[in-house]
Amino acid sequence: MTVTPHVALVAVDWGTSHLRVWALGADRSVLGMRRSDEGMGATPCDRFAAILESHLEALGVAPDVPVVMCGMVGSRQGWAEAGYLPVPTDLGEIAVRAVRVPAHRRDIRILPGLSHTDSKHPDVMRGEETQLLGLARRRFAAGRGARMVCMPGTHSKWVRQDGLRVEGFASFMTGDTFSALSAHSVLRHSVGPDATAVDAASPDFRLAVAASLEAPSAILARLFSIRSAGLLQGLSPNAARARLSGYLIGQEIAGARARFAIGDTVELVGGGVLGELYAAALACAGIGANLHDGDELVIYGLADAASQIWTLDAPRLTEQET
Amino acid sequence: MTVTPHVALVAVDWGTSHLRVWALGADRSVLGMRRSDEGMGATPCDRFAAILESHLEALGVAPDVPVVMCGMVGSRQGWAEAGYLPVPTDLGEIAVRAVRVPAHRRDIRILPGLSHTDSKHPDVMRGEETQLLGLARRRFAAGRGARMVCMPGTHSKWVRQDGLRVEGFASFMTGDTFSALSAHSVLRHSVGPDATAVDAASPDFRLAVAASLEAPSAILARLFSIRSAGLLQGLSPNAARARLSGYLIGQEIAGARARFAIGDTVELVGGGVLGELYAAALACAGIGANLHDGDELVIYGLADAASQIWTLDAPRLTEQET
Repeated sequence: MTVTPHVALVAVDWGTSHLRVWALGADRSVLGMRRSDEGMGATPCDRFAAILESHLEALGVAPDVPVVMCGMVGSRQGWAEAGYLPVPTDLGEIAVRAVRVPAHRRDIRILPGLSHTDSKHPDVMRGEETQLLGLARRRFAAGRGARMVCMPGTHSKWVRQDGLRVEGFASFMTGDTFSALSAHSVLRHSVGPDATAVDAASPDFRLAVAASLEAPSAILARLFSIRSAGLLQGLSPNAARARLSGYLIGQEIAGARARFAIGDTVELVGGGVLGELYAAALACAGIGANLHDGDELVIYGLADAASQIWTLDAPRLTEQET
Repeated sequence: MTVTPHVALVAVDWGTSHLRVWALGADRSVLGMRRSDEGMGATPCDRFAAILESHLEALGVAPDVPVVMCGMVGSRQGWAEAGYLPVPTDLGEIAVRAVRVPAHRRDIRILPGLSHTDSKHPDVMRGEETQLLGLARRRFAAGRGARMVCMPGTHSKWVRQDGLRVEGFASFMTGDTFSALSAHSVLRHSVGPDATAVDAASPDFRLAVAASLEAPSAILARLFSIRSAGLLQGLSPNAARARLSGYLIGQEIAGARARFAIGDTVELVGGGVLGELYAAALACAGIGANLHDGDELVIYGLADAASQIWTLDAPRLTEQET
């Protein structure tokens, strides 16, 4: 193995469908990265160690370099259960409550998720808390007042955050519902098998967002109207996909607005097409968005947690270096 | 082939997933019936004739007995396209607009569906129009004023009907969404693979209906809360299924209420567990339900249409009888 010098820490986001590994220098600069589809969902328990070490070897990471991880790797079905911190909480706590992976020579810590434990709105997140930590450390000064953070995805999160403090959050099954209906409902005939990305500038997308914002109770009827518009009006697969996306994202924003006082502007975490779609949808609702790169935030959050863990825990790091 | 005497007409409901065939006497009594899963969705075009005739042979139906059909068999992908009647319309028209299956010795007619062609609420139904005809002929006197008809299913229909006149309708993707999310979203871990029917008396079901009625905009968050309640509160698969069903049916009722003036009581078409669930959900919304058996209505509607078709068309029937 060729060891890459100067790697001080490895940061890992290991979710249900993807694994991402970053080799970081002491100054948190990215020295190398690996991305794979060996997500938790497709990985047998007895393969976790071998998969991680194979990526570390490819990155030339020495055996004494510690690893900090977040995501579904800390779930009950993951590598080591890291539990949840109930909100309201201070994001500094996630480093304190990190769990060490047992029976592994390398020092590997997994950060816990966050939970909402009241019986009316039970909720969980795992992975996003680390992005929120990165956002707070990098972008927010504490004491500037609460902000809403919108984190689009398979299970989008809306978070009320004030500096390091998370006051509450809600998850919306937007992306998961889009996928399930696109492939496994009558709408599969309308949207077609093609996976062309939805265009945020498409009138079909924007009108669909507006329709859900205006009449959120009728979402189940609007969904079927996509099929009817295909049969009666020759709606194209691209337009059908844009409407499905717009109806669901509009519904999410309507639900978030009913739950939280959102204000004029949200912090929007996400890059690429999804970030554009949400920015356009938020604009339809009269809400501005400050866009943040999700990868950058998770790296920053993992590195921040690591600097707390191994300061608290300096002797172990020293032992490993011998 | 043993011919069953006295069969005057065969009534067929051929939908996406099921085929049902009833041999009827001149007095519309049911002399025999066949049910199979050879739905339109699973049947190649060149097999339609052979499948139907095999069931007719098993029922001992003579070659000169006419057949009237409704359902997806009349769609573009069906046996012969029967089009849609735009609403508002008189249900007596569906017999007038029936299409004869070409190139088949037996006289077979397929009834058209109904459509809503305005661009804001495009909508279609196929099969339910025949139940509505049966309901009007059997249960409703014209001139008693408009009623709402609720027809639960994969794509539930809510219909505003006054005697034979259909004034408008809306479809809700309730059952289809339940199936897609149960099997193909993160909720599959919560509801489990078991298909135990949801109990209409379950508090989980009723509270879920009430939650959707109270805050319909937040449906995408409520759906995810099923997963969170499993992780945090140990929600059982049965309770998770009851909640998923209740959230979606409650959402449907909230949407129907926003679209139509529903009044105190609806005509509820459907038997079995689904009828019970909808009656319980409607009760949560303060709406009473007159329950009607869907099979009985479709047979009555098909027979009624047939009596119009072959009265108008008597010479052909006579020819076949020779």
